[in-house]
Amino acid sequence: MKTHVQCIPCYFNQLIVTATRCGLPESEVVQMCVELGHALAEFDFSRTPAENSPFVSAIIRQHTGEYDNFVSIKEKSTAMALQAYPLLKDLVAKSHDPIAMALRIAAVGNIIDFGVPRSFDLDAELRRIDSLDFAVFDYDAFQDVLGRAENVLIIGDNAGETVFDRVLLEALGKPAVYAVRSAPALNDALAWDAVQAGLDQVATIIESGSTIPSTVLAQTTQEFRDALEHADLVISKGQGNFEGLSDTTDIFFLLKAKCEQVARELGVRVGDLILKRF
Amino acid sequence: MKTHVQCIPCYFNQLIVTATRCGLPESEVVQMCVELGHALAEFDFSRTPAENSPFVSAIIRQHTGEYDNFVSIKEKSTAMALQAYPLLKDLVAKSHDPIAMALRIAAVGNIIDFGVPRSFDLDAELRRIDSLDFAVFDYDAFQDVLGRAENVLIIGDNAGETVFDRVLLEALGKPAVYAVRSAPALNDALAWDAVQAGLDQVATIIESGSTIPSTVLAQTTQEFRDALEHADLVISKGQGNFEGLSDTTDIFFLLKAKCEQVARELGVRVGDLILKRF
Repeated sequence: MKTHVQCIPCYFNQLIVTATRCGLPESEVVQMCVELGHALAEFDFSRTPAENSPFVSAIIRQHTGEYDNFVSIKEKSTAMALQAYPLLKDLVAKSHDPIAMALRIAAVGNIIDFGVPRSFDLDAELRRIDSLDFAVFDYDAFQDVLGRAENVLIIGDNAGETVFDRVLLEALGKPAVYAVRSAPALNDALAWDAVQAGLDQVATIIESGSTIPSTVLAQTTQEFRDALEHADLVISKGQGNFEGLSDTTDIFFLLKAKCEQVARELGVRVGDLILKRF
Repeated sequence: MKTHVQCIPCYFNQLIVTATRCGLPESEVVQMCVELGHALAEFDFSRTPAENSPFVSAIIRQHTGEYDNFVSIKEKSTAMALQAYPLLKDLVAKSHDPIAMALRIAAVGNIIDFGVPRSFDLDAELRRIDSLDFAVFDYDAFQDVLGRAENVLIIGDNAGETVFDRVLLEALGKPAVYAVRSAPALNDALAWDAVQAGLDQVATIIESGSTIPSTVLAQTTQEFRDALEHADLVISKGQGNFEGLSDTTDIFFLLKAKCEQVARELGVRVGDLILKRF
């Protein structure tokens, strides 16, 4: 999926939200926006949106002097999600269809996006979980592939969401690989975040080679590409991974369409939740 | 209301939506965004958001070579709203509280925003009008002021919305003044747009002096300030006018809060509809 000119306001939003959260003064944030305005001339619009996001990260890193500006946010997100872990397990245990429930839980993990600075009531979200509607839900195909699968690969997304993915992997009950980014990219999970979520108890954690909030095959390690090739069931979480992998087949994309461009690519509407096999 | 750093993505969005609608190629729109990035350094963040919008307009005008890029959109909006006029009149005539219904109609006119390029079903919006909920509805105060008022001033907003305001003025049944911008500002109504909406049959149309999508007193004409001072009942339509007039008292603001900054200023949530006396 290529970068659209309509993605530009989102880059500014990302920059402003992150810089403000890092406590930079408004005058400096404005200056950072000016710098991003200059950088736009260097953007490659034939590439995916995430591939242009390093222009944003570079400006933030330069102004904060930090390599990973999301360390504390990621830790808080994981801690919060771990508090919900017993409830999540209970939801699966009591469900008449534990696999479908675990998929819903993994979807809620993506909906929440712990990196976005707003208050949300996780308990309330979970109480509504039975009425969570998927606009696309390729569940028959999912069950079919799962039935024959000897192993599973999840391509992870945000920290915090990792705990919800752990619940999914525990419900699937297959040997699993969980892929994370190789360098800080917004609030996306790194290996340490995955370990904190307890994913090492249920999967082999690998770094994909990606250093952006997405997974672009050309940037991945041989280890990741091998895992992708040998996995019988592949689940890609979130919009960022979809942007990079939308041309790849035999993947179940589990995500909430958070913007017009991705929604159009998927043939759904903004806000729609999907489990879609490509 | 001052300009927030969080307003920056909106300026880019405005630029991109307008430039795209004007048919400019993507590469040129990117270049326009780079120019807006440069211009950010000149923004005055102590002023209202609308007072910085000429930076956006200037770039659009330079690239399209047009002074008013919304002429055809405004004409279409007014024509579409005029088609609904008989239905609007019918809704007021059949209501047990014609004034409240006319206020709801004027609010729907603001909700729709004919300048935004999306499809909407006006009939469906109007069928739902009885269930239209105001988060703030200072109706008792409105009726009190109206009862004693000998004249009314409406500070207009978008073209198309003008037709809905005409219905409100006809329901109020008082001598009225309708204020419009003095120069093109997005899809805001100019005098000609107000005439096309038939407002000249029910009000004296005046230009406020404003050349931005807002009303900032320092920029207004003496004629407008006199009208504001002498009007017994003043209704300001839309978010743009609120941004400029939020420090002015004895005005009823009728608008939908379309962004986080304005919602916060009003103590409501994004999407909320309000009739609030300041």
